[in-house]
Amino acid sequence: MKSMTQLITDKKAGLAHTEEEVQWLVENYTNDHIPDYQMSAWLMAVCWQGMTFDETKALTLAMMRSGTCLQLHSVGRPLIDKHSTGGVADTTTLVLAPLLAAAGAGVAKMSGRGLGFTGGTIDKLESIPGFSATLQEEQFLALLQKQGLALTAQSASIAPADGKMYALRDVTATVDSLPLIAASVMSKKLAAGAEHILLDVKVGQGAFMQTKEAAVELARYMVAIGLGAGRNVKAVLTSMEQPLGLAVGNALEVAEAIEILRGRGPLRLRQVCLRLAAEALCLAGMAKTQDEADLQLAALLDSGKALECFRQWILSQGGADIVATPTLLPRAALEEELLSPYSGYVQQIQARIIGEASVALGAGRRYKGETLDLAAGLVLACEQGDFVQKGQKLATLHAASAEKMAAAKKMLVAAFVLSETPPLSYPDVLGWVDADGFHAEAE
Amino acid sequence: MKSMTQLITDKKAGLAHTEEEVQWLVENYTNDHIPDYQMSAWLMAVCWQGMTFDETKALTLAMMRSGTCLQLHSVGRPLIDKHSTGGVADTTTLVLAPLLAAAGAGVAKMSGRGLGFTGGTIDKLESIPGFSATLQEEQFLALLQKQGLALTAQSASIAPADGKMYALRDVTATVDSLPLIAASVMSKKLAAGAEHILLDVKVGQGAFMQTKEAAVELARYMVAIGLGAGRNVKAVLTSMEQPLGLAVGNALEVAEAIEILRGRGPLRLRQVCLRLAAEALCLAGMAKTQDEADLQLAALLDSGKALECFRQWILSQGGADIVATPTLLPRAALEEELLSPYSGYVQQIQARIIGEASVALGAGRRYKGETLDLAAGLVLACEQGDFVQKGQKLATLHAASAEKMAAAKKMLVAAFVLSETPPLSYPDVLGWVDADGFHAEAE
Repeated sequence: MKSMTQLITDKKAGLAHTEEEVQWLVENYTNDHIPDYQMSAWLMAVCWQGMTFDETKALTLAMMRSGTCLQLHSVGRPLIDKHSTGGVADTTTLVLAPLLAAAGAGVAKMSGRGLGFTGGTIDKLESIPGFSATLQEEQFLALLQKQGLALTAQSASIAPADGKMYALRDVTATVDSLPLIAASVMSKKLAAGAEHILLDVKVGQGAFMQTKEAAVELARYMVAIGLGAGRNVKAVLTSMEQPLGLAVGNALEVAEAIEILRGRGPLRLRQVCLRLAAEALCLAGMAKTQDEADLQLAALLDSGKALECFRQWILSQGGADIVATPTLLPRAALEEELLSPYSGYVQQIQARIIGEASVALGAGRRYKGETLDLAAGLVLACEQGDFVQKGQKLATLHAASAEKMAAAKKMLVAAFVLSETPPLSYPDVLGWVDADGFHAEAE
Repeated sequence: MKSMTQLITDKKAGLAHTEEEVQWLVENYTNDHIPDYQMSAWLMAVCWQGMTFDETKALTLAMMRSGTCLQLHSVGRPLIDKHSTGGVADTTTLVLAPLLAAAGAGVAKMSGRGLGFTGGTIDKLESIPGFSATLQEEQFLALLQKQGLALTAQSASIAPADGKMYALRDVTATVDSLPLIAASVMSKKLAAGAEHILLDVKVGQGAFMQTKEAAVELARYMVAIGLGAGRNVKAVLTSMEQPLGLAVGNALEVAEAIEILRGRGPLRLRQVCLRLAAEALCLAGMAKTQDEADLQLAALLDSGKALECFRQWILSQGGADIVATPTLLPRAALEEELLSPYSGYVQQIQARIIGEASVALGAGRRYKGETLDLAAGLVLACEQGDFVQKGQKLATLHAASAEKMAAAKKMLVAAFVLSETPPLSYPDVLGWVDADGFHAEAE
């Protein structure tokens, strides 16, 4: 076998590694035989020269094999995993998990915490008093069997190579590499055992992938890797130029998810949730057409079954009954309104700035391990295309201190782009990637 | 100040660091506040995106300032440092040091050990029984004052940042970056205190810089950095497509250097030595023209003064009197001849392969710290342009074992390129770089 220095030299020169070389590299890094300083040089060389599809597939499988692979066949429900690549005001997981479970699917969710301007599902759920995202494997399986739904924090035994590599990538500026992102996501999804995997790949300034081309390539890699591993995989590309919902912040997003499950809430978020849920039901063979899926989902919302499924799930993991008593969710000490400095059409609400302002309010982490203010965040009072008058409310801000409030307000000045004419409307769903490649959404 | 992660992000994006950022980075790496894994990611990003001249200058000065800077003004001779970027059969330092000292210059030489296919001056000198390359600063200065010549191993107190960075570059495949090479060489030269610095930049397959363009750029960077630091600097570009001398191997090269100092030895090596020595004398203002310098040097060789200066130098550092008794140099147990498999003109002798065969014979290191066989190596029996008959000797090989002999012979098959017609002749000196830029050598 080549030395690690030779593998770095090869990658730096743009050469492709063999499957055996990738397996050797991942194995020896996981068991501490390759030092961090060689791994980080290799990671930067990958950012520089990229990886072929075959290399990325080999990397994914080697990372998957670095730990436990869950066997969930005994659950007796079609097992669906839905993964979002991360965005701003992206509350879809909190809505889809109970909706799909109510439809009869098994949703075994392993989630992570948020970092930077994108939120994490576990942080959102932990804003519910009492909720625990730390389940033992038996509890996790028991809940999944009973109610079709359980959520736990990423276990250290699932793809440990990914955990170790991600921690290194985070401090060596080597996160934003397409093959590394694809391998990181898919190694965990494959190890977590779902048969049907629906990927929500976010595109735009509020996401890791800023262009449609980059998002399509990431989606192609992830779908092909999943299909190659014998799973049923589809990726939907959704826009993250604007925040998806109105609420940004942990408890605020939980409240918004409940609104959606009540059949209310902001239109764009509701539509994207329903579209993703319909895609998931079709992918798992639980509906033959999107129309059939739409009817099922509408009935689950109208009857209150989806909401009740959410309520039981939260209770089963120790959470307070926030559906019955919404005031149990934490509330920030300070609330302030952000007013529009002039009149005009809302041309754009810049997702990236909104996300960063929510971090300034205390809702997101600037560094790993930072404690969050789970009540903090903001709720938008307008959407793209609305006409706002000078002095009209643009958003309500929630924070623990006047300093945080002032810092966020300063950032938010640039977030709302107003104009004299209404904006062109952009689609929320850009298209999808399946075994046949990319399909643009019909206008 | 930005975080190290931000500096890596900037460099990865092709942005230039400020002088303060570079100083902060070198300082904090030297005192162990920046971990190796971040430094190696940054080094790979530098290999990828390069560094501007201003960044490289800042890096050089920061590395120089990381340790002691010698003050040698009290020596009372014009202080000349000659540095070669490394090649095969490059015995020039062993010849130039006594030649320049005999001419009245002060030659305070700090040298390194060899790695891979290029030799190191210290290894060559240590083949002389008793010779010590470890001098205390007072001994070093006393010898310099007395005989105008002293040589010591790179001290850990000179540019320690370079020592630490080079060790990391060596194991992370980040050696071959022009700004990193320039900063590594010049930080040590500037800290070692010479007023006049003559750089011998090797070009070709047996050197780090394989093309003239890359060598000219490296030379421009190094010359401009040195001039900017108030030193008198010139770089001469010399060819390393063919081995420079005939001997490759430590004791074998010492014997060849003595031949040159006796006014004999192979023509190409002698010419390049005399040219570099004349350049050095002109640079230091010890001769007004090359012709005047040539006359001085011829007199020093003819009178035996240069050879006597070499002899006294070796004796003063504890070495045996190998000038009087050449048989004191170590000799390998086995000697074998390599015979030509067919007749033809020697079109090329591939320097890189010759260098690697010498490593196989035991004369060079495959990894840092490896013990060398100081007697091992090979002596070429032909030069480019010679006509050799089938069965005629191409080289004599020296090694300690039949295994090493066989391994080297296998490699050497490809080193000698024969043809039916004589080769075009290529110049040994390609040109030079001074304050006014690159000047091609007149044909």
